[in-house]
Amino acid sequence: MASNMYLYWGSGSVACWKAMIALEEKGFGGYPNKLISFSKQEHKAEDVMKLNPRGQVPVFKDGDIVLNDSVAICDYLERRYGNQGTQLIPSDVKELANVLQRMYEVSNVEGNILKELAIYLFYTKKEDQDEALLKEKFEKGRAELQIWEGYMQKMGSGAFIASKSFSMADVYFFPYLAYFVRLGLNLSKYPALSEYYNRIKDRASLKASWPPHWLKEPPKIDSMSQI
Amino acid sequence: MASNMYLYWGSGSVACWKAMIALEEKGFGGYPNKLISFSKQEHKAEDVMKLNPRGQVPVFKDGDIVLNDSVAICDYLERRYGNQGTQLIPSDVKELANVLQRMYEVSNVEGNILKELAIYLFYTKKEDQDEALLKEKFEKGRAELQIWEGYMQKMGSGAFIASKSFSMADVYFFPYLAYFVRLGLNLSKYPALSEYYNRIKDRASLKASWPPHWLKEPPKIDSMSQI
Repeated sequence: MASNMYLYWGSGSVACWKAMIALEEKGFGGYPNKLISFSKQEHKAEDVMKLNPRGQVPVFKDGDIVLNDSVAICDYLERRYGNQGTQLIPSDVKELANVLQRMYEVSNVEGNILKELAIYLFYTKKEDQDEALLKEKFEKGRAELQIWEGYMQKMGSGAFIASKSFSMADVYFFPYLAYFVRLGLNLSKYPALSEYYNRIKDRASLKASWPPHWLKEPPKIDSMSQI
Repeated sequence: MASNMYLYWGSGSVACWKAMIALEEKGFGGYPNKLISFSKQEHKAEDVMKLNPRGQVPVFKDGDIVLNDSVAICDYLERRYGNQGTQLIPSDVKELANVLQRMYEVSNVEGNILKELAIYLFYTKKEDQDEALLKEKFEKGRAELQIWEGYMQKMGSGAFIASKSFSMADVYFFPYLAYFVRLGLNLSKYPALSEYYNRIKDRASLKASWPPHWLKEPPKIDSMSQI
């Protein structure tokens, strides 16, 4: 079935990684794909633009169905192929509610840490960084991480971010955590997240989809260590 | 069943409105609720903070289940109460894919128009607005609206934003469109969106949940007319 599928993706994109984890978890490992180069602007090339005029990846095809939003891809895979691979959305109502809440609450991690802080550190030269503003951004980012540390503490060791089992909430959350670790985040300040990270980082779906250039190249910034 | 439900909400919040439309569509109109005042900081009051330490609305209760993210609330309502009221997520695979794609693609409307442009206009005094930057923001916002105008043209008249029937994509998209209209958006530049807006604005679920203060007070800015 996976032979009908096709994924355009970029290495290190959290959005792409989410879709790739979901594909692995649903048992579609080995799907045809094309790794595009952001630096060569291949996400703006004709083959991608034809499928997604926004010129962004991931772009996913399943037969004649095209999806180009990472959350839409994940949601689609679980709805259409619910009965195969890992069940990413639980049936039990309480577990369902918790997984849905955490899945979408990850947008705060994107907003408060990735967009506010990591992107600022990435695109602002050290000499141009405003110390007071940066302090504020670090505090906001730290507060966000502490919320998730609290969730993980409540879940208890051996559990996942929103459920006793690996769920869509992990698909959405883990790539951010791994990205921040790559950028220098010191997990020893967040013991429950540290335990969670180290326990699941070798999970087959994550290893199979780990951004390949992360294994070869050092990060451009490591200043997330201050968070 | 709705008597087990409770919603904390604020008037004019797109996030709250989304949850309220979904509640109406699923047949829970008349659910117990509390309208909080943002200006009195009631979203930071004890009753809300106890349920959502982030101090944000909407906060939704269904028995002992608490959800405080608008997309989580909508997703939960459709998954748990799929068989009642409007079916907001289609069963047909092609329709499903299109609805999911548009639902989550609405995040671009939030990013490129609400956050980039409307919030800039709202919070930056006219004399402090940078003309070149504003021009760029208007162009980006206009390009985003044109994408949706194109979608609506393709759907054809009588259809909804992603399907022949009203779907979750309308629940997520319409409140933004209505908000921009309130802020002065001239829909005559976007004929398909104009037809769509005027055809569905009196739909029962939308009328029942329309932000009450919009009916009484003029908007603080009307500069979206330039988009």
